[in-house]
Amino acid sequence: MKIAVDAMGGDNAPQVIIEGVEQARDLYPDLEFDLYGNPDKVKPLIKNNDRLNMIATTEEISMGEEPVRAIRRKKDSSIVRAATAVKDGKADAFFSAGNTGAILAAGLFIVGRIKGIDRPGLTSILPIAQPGANRHNFVYLDTGANAESKEKNLEQYAYLGKFYAENVLGVANPRIALLNNGAEEDKGDKLHKEVWQILNSKDDLNFVGNVEAGDLLFGKADVIVSDGWTANAALKATEGTAKMMMTLIKHGILHGGLRAKLGYLMLKPTFHQIGQKMSASTYGGAVLLGLKAPVVKTHGSSDALAVKNTISQIRTMLKTGVIEKTVEFFDNTENLDNSNKNE
Amino acid sequence: MKIAVDAMGGDNAPQVIIEGVEQARDLYPDLEFDLYGNPDKVKPLIKNNDRLNMIATTEEISMGEEPVRAIRRKKDSSIVRAATAVKDGKADAFFSAGNTGAILAAGLFIVGRIKGIDRPGLTSILPIAQPGANRHNFVYLDTGANAESKEKNLEQYAYLGKFYAENVLGVANPRIALLNNGAEEDKGDKLHKEVWQILNSKDDLNFVGNVEAGDLLFGKADVIVSDGWTANAALKATEGTAKMMMTLIKHGILHGGLRAKLGYLMLKPTFHQIGQKMSASTYGGAVLLGLKAPVVKTHGSSDALAVKNTISQIRTMLKTGVIEKTVEFFDNTENLDNSNKNE
Repeated sequence: MKIAVDAMGGDNAPQVIIEGVEQARDLYPDLEFDLYGNPDKVKPLIKNNDRLNMIATTEEISMGEEPVRAIRRKKDSSIVRAATAVKDGKADAFFSAGNTGAILAAGLFIVGRIKGIDRPGLTSILPIAQPGANRHNFVYLDTGANAESKEKNLEQYAYLGKFYAENVLGVANPRIALLNNGAEEDKGDKLHKEVWQILNSKDDLNFVGNVEAGDLLFGKADVIVSDGWTANAALKATEGTAKMMMTLIKHGILHGGLRAKLGYLMLKPTFHQIGQKMSASTYGGAVLLGLKAPVVKTHGSSDALAVKNTISQIRTMLKTGVIEKTVEFFDNTENLDNSNKNE
Repeated sequence: MKIAVDAMGGDNAPQVIIEGVEQARDLYPDLEFDLYGNPDKVKPLIKNNDRLNMIATTEEISMGEEPVRAIRRKKDSSIVRAATAVKDGKADAFFSAGNTGAILAAGLFIVGRIKGIDRPGLTSILPIAQPGANRHNFVYLDTGANAESKEKNLEQYAYLGKFYAENVLGVANPRIALLNNGAEEDKGDKLHKEVWQILNSKDDLNFVGNVEAGDLLFGKADVIVSDGWTANAALKATEGTAKMMMTLIKHGILHGGLRAKLGYLMLKPTFHQIGQKMSASTYGGAVLLGLKAPVVKTHGSSDALAVKNTISQIRTMLKTGVIEKTVEFFDNTENLDNSNKNE
């Protein structure tokens, strides 16, 4: 299995990208990597060339660039070249920590959608933080690939999330929920009311109803489906609040005198556990689900551990054939609502 | 100044309502209260009748009831009677910890909107948690009175929030921001792009641009304006994450042995401070802004402190004449966009 790696994307690239890739390479003998980037910058960082191929590119897409224009114009950028390799069957998956919009655009316009999928959904794996919960994480989409969504999109996200949870997370009969502004069937705007009815009508979905944004991390479902606008706001609020709580604790310790500092030393293992549980690095990257191959991105600020974990996630996607199973499902017209297909 | 109190609403009513009201009464010699409720339940709880008048009602609206039907049918409920007293000028403000939907409906249909206001916005006062910030809280609306909003509604929320911040929080020239999915001017769906342009065009608004949901508590603005759907999701995610972080810390302490318990004792003042900063009780209740009088609700789970703080907030609204100033502004047609007025 070969992964096409954008070696130039991310705040700490190429350093942490190469570190993480080498860690994953040492861990998984069945993986091979093509590293797309500037050889002058990348090659000196490589410790061991085993199963790492350097592929020279001359352009870079920076974090602030307008995505669609960037991938159209910078044909020799690491993102465009790596995505093209996947499209041409020269690699099995795409990995980057770079410009999110450019990765989404490269996935959509170069790697391409699965037949029958209208709009791929950006998918995060988030922690189930509730102590004592049976499972440690859940599937959450669309976290922001699309600012405006239709009923059909959310229906497709439910199936994309279901296949991911079954195959990659190993959840049997995953519980599917809809993010909404209340628990009851009749909550939400027109879109969410209709999606509730559609999901509830499907015999092949274990639909458990609505979940509110306040319950995201509480383990009420294995897949939480949402339009990209709402999921994005709730995800950012969740991340921002967790960050703020950690800031407040640190500030309290720094300004709490000797007593607080001693308390911190004693509670260090607890804080470490919480930090790990709530950290994005622990659960891998965000997957643009609905494409013909794994296209996965990590935070721009990712460290080598996050890179390694994300590559491990890509490997599981490849080994379990989650995308092939998704393709097969959407290829079978009987699995799809006819009223939706004819739109 | 007289406040009409729904003594029956809330998980711990009438007990904590009466406690909180008596605390506020003892603190503020200029306040008087009419307590609407079942005298058999309320009277035995009253310690001192000074400036407390019991007004007997025979019905209650429970937490689960369909709001609009409930306020139409239960004419002798504590919510309907208290709201009617405000409408009839027998009281200056309405307070309840009961069924949110019923309170909103009573505010809208009984107390009534300010002339020129299309849709009142549910307004929360949230903490600016960022250590070292100049201010301790900000105004956030609409947190969920309306699931679907138009440009005009968000424009009006900006002014409602501005008047509230100036008068009740005492902020000179408050910074107004728009909750959006990115910082740049061109971010968001059609609604948010247009609202950005409208707010940016107003000379009498200190518009500071977009704020993302991850930055809610970071003090980037004094008023954050949003459609009710998005603000509600981001608020619930914020509250849920703060709660989850506290749960994880408690769990870590309980299962961390003697070391963790000692650490907890030493960090207790820090945790207490954080808990207080992040607690809804600290900042008062949610105001349905855009009505002819203060209509304010606290969480159903409020304690006496939250009730007392919310009454203090209502008193500030009354003393500063924030509603009269809002009425005056919306009465002056020149202050409003003509294209909006003619819709």
